[in-house]
Amino acid sequence: MAIHRFEPRRFHTTIGSHEPALRVGDGDTVITWCVDARGQDRAGAQITPRGNPQTGPFYVEGAAPGDALAVTFDRIYPNRAQGWTNCVVAPWVVDPDFVTELPKAELETWALDLERGLARLEREGSPASMASLPFDPMIGCFGVAPAGGQAISTATSAEHGGNMDYRGFRQGVTVYLPVAVEGALFHIGDGHAVQGDGEIVGTGIEVSFDVEFTPRVVRNRRVRWPRAENEREIMAIGNGRPLDQCVQHATTELMRMMQEEYGLTYRDSSAILGQCVRYDLGNVFDPAYTMVAKVEKRFLPPRRSA
Amino acid sequence: MAIHRFEPRRFHTTIGSHEPALRVGDGDTVITWCVDARGQDRAGAQITPRGNPQTGPFYVEGAAPGDALAVTFDRIYPNRAQGWTNCVVAPWVVDPDFVTELPKAELETWALDLERGLARLEREGSPASMASLPFDPMIGCFGVAPAGGQAISTATSAEHGGNMDYRGFRQGVTVYLPVAVEGALFHIGDGHAVQGDGEIVGTGIEVSFDVEFTPRVVRNRRVRWPRAENEREIMAIGNGRPLDQCVQHATTELMRMMQEEYGLTYRDSSAILGQCVRYDLGNVFDPAYTMVAKVEKRFLPPRRSA
Amino acid sequence: MAIHRFEPRRFHTTIGSHEPALRVGDGDTVITWCVDARGQDRAGAQITPRGNPQTGPFYVEGAAPGDALAVTFDRIYPNRAQGWTNCVVAPWVVDPDFVTELPKAELETWALDLERGLARLEREGSPASMASLPFDPMIGCFGVAPAGGQAISTATSAEHGGNMDYRGFRQGVTVYLPVAVEGALFHIGDGHAVQGDGEIVGTGIEVSFDVEFTPRVVRNRRVRWPRAENEREIMAIGNGRPLDQCVQHATTELMRMMQEEYGLTYRDSSAILGQCVRYDLGNVFDPAYTMVAKVEKRFLPPRRSA
Amino acid sequence: MAIHRFEPRRFHTTIGSHEPALRVGDGDTVITWCVDARGQDRAGAQITPRGNPQTGPFYVEGAAPGDALAVTFDRIYPNRAQGWTNCVVAPWVVDPDFVTELPKAELETWALDLERGLARLEREGSPASMASLPFDPMIGCFGVAPAGGQAISTATSAEHGGNMDYRGFRQGVTVYLPVAVEGALFHIGDGHAVQGDGEIVGTGIEVSFDVEFTPRVVRNRRVRWPRAENEREIMAIGNGRPLDQCVQHATTELMRMMQEEYGLTYRDSSAILGQCVRYDLGNVFDPAYTMVAKVEKRFLPPRRSA
Repeated sequence: MAIHRFEPRRFHTTIGSHEPALRVGDGDTVITWCVDARGQDRAGAQITPRGNPQTGPFYVEGAAPGDALAVTFDRIYPNRAQGWTNCVVAPWVVDPDFVTELPKAELETWALDLERGLARLEREGSPASMASLPFDPMIGCFGVAPAGGQAISTATSAEHGGNMDYRGFRQGVTVYLPVAVEGALFHIGDGHAVQGDGEIVGTGIEVSFDVEFTPRVVRNRRVRWPRAENEREIMAIGNGRPLDQCVQHATTELMRMMQEEYGLTYRDSSAILGQCVRYDLGNVFDPAYTMVAKVEKRFLPPRRSA
Repeated sequence: MAIHRFEPRRFHTTIGSHEPALRVGDGDTVITWCVDARGQDRAGAQITPRGNPQTGPFYVEGAAPGDALAVTFDRIYPNRAQGWTNCVVAPWVVDPDFVTELPKAELETWALDLERGLARLEREGSPASMASLPFDPMIGCFGVAPAGGQAISTATSAEHGGNMDYRGFRQGVTVYLPVAVEGALFHIGDGHAVQGDGEIVGTGIEVSFDVEFTPRVVRNRRVRWPRAENEREIMAIGNGRPLDQCVQHATTELMRMMQEEYGLTYRDSSAILGQCVRYDLGNVFDPAYTMVAKVEKRFLPPRRSA
Repeated sequence: MAIHRFEPRRFHTTIGSHEPALRVGDGDTVITWCVDARGQDRAGAQITPRGNPQTGPFYVEGAAPGDALAVTFDRIYPNRAQGWTNCVVAPWVVDPDFVTELPKAELETWALDLERGLARLEREGSPASMASLPFDPMIGCFGVAPAGGQAISTATSAEHGGNMDYRGFRQGVTVYLPVAVEGALFHIGDGHAVQGDGEIVGTGIEVSFDVEFTPRVVRNRRVRWPRAENEREIMAIGNGRPLDQCVQHATTELMRMMQEEYGLTYRDSSAILGQCVRYDLGNVFDPAYTMVAKVEKRFLPPRRSA
Repeated sequence: MAIHRFEPRRFHTTIGSHEPALRVGDGDTVITWCVDARGQDRAGAQITPRGNPQTGPFYVEGAAPGDALAVTFDRIYPNRAQGWTNCVVAPWVVDPDFVTELPKAELETWALDLERGLARLEREGSPASMASLPFDPMIGCFGVAPAGGQAISTATSAEHGGNMDYRGFRQGVTVYLPVAVEGALFHIGDGHAVQGDGEIVGTGIEVSFDVEFTPRVVRNRRVRWPRAENEREIMAIGNGRPLDQCVQHATTELMRMMQEEYGLTYRDSSAILGQCVRYDLGNVFDPAYTMVAKVEKRFLPPRRSA
């Protein structure tokens, strides 16, 4: 298994069948970095246009339509001492008759203590700057090239992944994406040092990131919506609108995952999920919203060999 | 502060301006019990028609329109050794083209170990009966009489509370409800020994409950949607459809709560919530869905005196 | 068949099991009147609190749970020379980031020429007052007592009817409502001289009305959502949120109506509706929205005898 | 103004910045044809993969970002004597608990009398084949290349147009689309001889089409969502989910159009639309739904010169 150190030169604001930036083997590890959502690098220099610019795409040898691409986030961490956020909740996350009470949106800056892993709002005198927030680094946007020649904006998400802004996409997680083209073409970007549920101000604490990840090909594993797992849980991610539809996608995909990988009938998965499922909210900011259905592995029977 | 032991004789399947079952003082404690969602008591006898029958209503002396009724759940616990659940997820929580793959809905029974606080599915040989689930007792439905002479079905929820099925409504929580009529008229019922997020099979583990609660009147506190708090967090609850609307109600109410009780401008609450808010899913089963927005108190400035 | 002239004295802002205002026979005709949405009568005097006050309820002899109540609107017409509207679209019918561009809401008055059937905005110099609008009188809110002791606010709608604000509920239409209690208990109010689709400013041209209607009992006809017909079309009305759910209710009910009354399989009704269905928008203003699915009778086979 | 007769050889199932198939002048007319939704031509031969294949794109000289592209549908008509439809309503347009009552989906064929303009279901003995349906030819899918290098599937729709399936897009209509790239790159396909509102079976009567259209550049006209007009009405089209969002997009765009082109304040447009707006339903079948807001020109003041 090779290790690739990759210096990105070009960034994409769509996820699609772009020219591969690097070809890697199944199981290789890639060490690289991402600009922040506005296209600024670790030095704070804007080196590419804004809009969740993606590093990649990475062509994974052997990945073919019908497979899943498993990607483990080995390490993801901010690489700059200043991040930024929007300062007002989006008008669509509050009641319509409350919108006129909101202040104007502006950017806020946050001091990031990379050693101690703490973020602090740089607005003196604000009650919001009193508490330091512990880092919980996550990747907001990643995905594989979608089917049919589509090039999907990194402002949104769909079956291929995309801009899901889920704080559970943190170090140690493995995600499973539906391969639609040869080589899968994995894209990654949009790191957040911290982010609340829903990304309701439209940003996490946005900052350039160092990332290290390992893609693996799972042959003939049909995933319809992104799946993920960490040590404790398995998850399925639904993207769409309204959130009700995200719930439907995520629940269905989780039940399929429990059938395919754990041999559970839909009656059995209903019994388990009915009393044990947890839903997490990705973003309610983008054109497509995101909801995650998950269940702890301790409630499941032994996994079938892959 | 008096303690009232109350034996219910009549139950209601709407929340409305029914004849008070008991009048209690501001700060008194009520010790009583609730039948399960099908109207069965601790002996398993069906003593009232099904549909989340409510114990009460309790008239709280001094409560008047414009006040909030604070109710602390001092103790809530199952009082019967058998509970039941539906066995299949609702057709509206899965993708529409997946509905035909679901099995028929039937009831399942669960053995409840009241001493150790464990629930176990009584279906031999099922992988779902392997793990015992630790109790996390909660109240599915409670509320105060709504305004304007409405009598709202206990199948659904609104500003007055109702059938929210949120597993965070557990022992130790204080809820705040908008008083719309003299005496507030508090109703309570529908206990669950355990319940997953979303109540996606339409039930938690349904069982009759012992309940003990303390209502207090908060004068001139206008709450538009139910609020709640536990030791660690403050919360606002939004009921409606689609879930997007629940998010709007809950977020708006939480921002109002942070302004009224913590003196935070909407810019400051945006800064805090943007990076620290958590959303929990109540039910996605009933006519109105439920979403909870919450934030930890440690991120907030000191609370103003009430 | 008797004709009843009824002078209302009490009005209701919930639809529920209120004391009958009048008992009428199956097929009798009632001649009465309604106040406007703010409770003002033909003289402009406010005689009851605002909120779509209902005349009635009317107890129809012989109506029992499981029946449908058919009500024909024999005559509905404004009885006052001045109406009023809100002057700004609701914040929830425009894009969230457009809300701050809207002006403040105020009331507008309209001159109503009852003889010629024309309405004209009384705001001099406004381009909106240039054109006279031809009357298209309709009833915004009507319904029967819902099941289970509910009393549902006249601000909203559900299976029992309620505040649907559909301009197709005009003179000559027959509506079919699900009888849930003995006598059905029919309520009626909230007349509009004119109204656009969606009731997007929250009002039609609101005015007190003369109404004349004839209720008939259809035995053992189970309707789940309101149905209606005029000379040309049959219709089913879905109430809920989001509009997608209204579409689901209305389409399902129309297919059931086509099966029960025209003997069409769901494959046949799919073939007809797929190419011939029309959807009309009731309100997108109230807590529950309204969508109507309809089809022309000329595309249907002969009706079965009732 | 030139007339171009164009024989398509390549078809696209995304709308994006594809190589122009033909360059035409501002105001030129194009006479060409489209395959049906499954890629079949006038001879019934499948000449390209299915999925609403588009003819084009057409590069319009002078069109630049910030302009609108006005396209008049001069003639659109089926060119084959047989069409097809799906035979069952989509599971998401009926109530979730009704889905299991639907029959299996199959294709139906329809005989098209091109001279008399009549369609008849070719299923003998079906009540649905009794009535001949008059043609009302429309274009289901058309649009211009979206911004930012996106290539959007012809299964869905967005600001750029796309698969809107609105039966009001018939001969004589002029549509206005937001130009995002040089030359606009207009695509067109997916003709329906007839279609009900909502495209609830997922198809109209699908058939290959002859089309004739004239594109014109409107300089510096910013449209955010497609606009359209016919002799009688102006329209704005909202695409999204749920339908509530389509209503928001369409209403906002129509109010902007009334301000920019007719000089109406939002208070005046509210007064007019409140009582005169009509909403039409495009599809409720695709990933993005479509709703059209429209108003008759007779209710508007004189138009400003463009």
